[in-house]
Amino acid sequence: MENIDKLMRSFIVDLGEGDIVSLYDNISQQGKKLRSKLIFEIAKTSRDATKLAAIVEMIHAASLLHDDVIDDADTRRGEESFNAKFGDKSAIMMGDILYSAAFSKLSEFPSAVAACVSNAVALLSAGELADVKLSEFFNTDKNRYMEMIYRKTASLIEASAYAAAVLEGFEGRDFGIYGKNLGLAFQIIDDILDITSNDKTLGKPALHDFKEGKMTLPYLYMYEACEEKEKKYMTTLYKKSLNSYEKDWIKNKMKEYGVIMRCIKEARNLGGEALGAIEKYNMDGLKNIIRQMVERDF
Amino acid sequence: MENIDKLMRSFIVDLGEGDIVSLYDNISQQGKKLRSKLIFEIAKTSRDATKLAAIVEMIHAASLLHDDVIDDADTRRGEESFNAKFGDKSAIMMGDILYSAAFSKLSEFPSAVAACVSNAVALLSAGELADVKLSEFFNTDKNRYMEMIYRKTASLIEASAYAAAVLEGFEGRDFGIYGKNLGLAFQIIDDILDITSNDKTLGKPALHDFKEGKMTLPYLYMYEACEEKEKKYMTTLYKKSLNSYEKDWIKNKMKEYGVIMRCIKEARNLGGEALGAIEKYNMDGLKNIIRQMVERDF
Repeated sequence: MENIDKLMRSFIVDLGEGDIVSLYDNISQQGKKLRSKLIFEIAKTSRDATKLAAIVEMIHAASLLHDDVIDDADTRRGEESFNAKFGDKSAIMMGDILYSAAFSKLSEFPSAVAACVSNAVALLSAGELADVKLSEFFNTDKNRYMEMIYRKTASLIEASAYAAAVLEGFEGRDFGIYGKNLGLAFQIIDDILDITSNDKTLGKPALHDFKEGKMTLPYLYMYEACEEKEKKYMTTLYKKSLNSYEKDWIKNKMKEYGVIMRCIKEARNLGGEALGAIEKYNMDGLKNIIRQMVERDF
Repeated sequence: MENIDKLMRSFIVDLGEGDIVSLYDNISQQGKKLRSKLIFEIAKTSRDATKLAAIVEMIHAASLLHDDVIDDADTRRGEESFNAKFGDKSAIMMGDILYSAAFSKLSEFPSAVAACVSNAVALLSAGELADVKLSEFFNTDKNRYMEMIYRKTASLIEASAYAAAVLEGFEGRDFGIYGKNLGLAFQIIDDILDITSNDKTLGKPALHDFKEGKMTLPYLYMYEACEEKEKKYMTTLYKKSLNSYEKDWIKNKMKEYGVIMRCIKEARNLGGEALGAIEKYNMDGLKNIIRQMVERDF
């Protein structure tokens, strides 16, 4: 993983601007690097795995820089966000630099690899806009939500798995299905944690999504399960700064209707789909990634 | 040229988000399309010329969307800018969508073409940051300025010419030199027009660059030519809202020291370099592009 960080930095140094390197060194490298782990598990022998991982992490970092500007986020993983520290403009420029440096290095890969990763970035940017649009109203359409998280979160994970498989000489499609379902499960679990975990773990306030207008899966299922009166009350809480009584009401209703358990099951099903797609390859590393994700405390 | 607009739009429609298409339709298509003209003049018989032109115009449009956010620009070509109309966030997202859709289509080209265009975008984003950094102080270093405009303006023009040549089976390098020098000349002329033209022609106030902190070539040459006392006075005007006396002082000093003529000569020299690189191909269209640019009233 350290080699990825080194390679990413060298791509930035290659641009030949000292100012950019100094700014770059302020981007938090504390992420989980899920996409890189996936690439290394799949492309175990390929010499280009590190380069692919560095490109994907740069794309991911670029999308987070722009996301935080768009969401007015002051924190990222519990630390002050890049935009909060250096301003929105620097974050926009740094994001553009990371995206473009990544695409430049991506063009050195076979076109099947370059195409799948760059298509994913197009989906990802479209997903960011869909996310913003879906946050503007009390969305109750699960399909729209699932399509949005596929684009915004799962597409780059899907492409990472697909591209790594192509590098290793495997069938890209199987690993793409694995990656897509892993990505969807990952996002649903993230949505659950926004409700069940306390501030420290997540580095952001609990029930933050609902306040930001994001009708994530737990809220969609809760609304579906609620009686008419409760539905009405729930809409009055939407996008509000909730007091502890209101927060408790939501959490209790979710408990009453088994919403969190239903979401966990859904994430586990997606995990099962992921595993099914790559069963014949018998790769323990990929099984563990799914297990560690879905078999945890919520 | 109409085919380019249609193809660009179809790339956006392919993303499958109605919201994106509606937003996209609000981007002004009133640009000169210099890069596309260049591509069509060079790749006269290639079937992929329109596709390359659409990709390059999308990249150019994306960079303008982000530039206008970064520069807090309310207008673009005399009209209200996209960010002024729809907000910075929409402009950031729309820029990301255009960039990523362009890269996605670019990955369908031979890697020599994809590599040169994507490298140019990396230079372009780095150039945007260099432009901002150079606007933060009274820069007197011509080399830094020329390197910045190469990156920010000339690199994508260079890549357009290079890539078009590769598509047509010509020597990319010759056309790259043509494009690079055309791009530099183009930027210098733009810098001159900010001083010599009135608001209507340019769609922005005259001497706008100096107020924004941009020490463009005329200001660099003026500073170089000034006596010590004048140099001092000039620095006091930097980044200020100038009254008409101060504006006249700058314009008169530029006249006195023959600064504008020196810049025009420099642009013409660059035009000559451009023509020299492609002399043997005897392409009238490319000669005309240079002539129309440098042989005009200032």
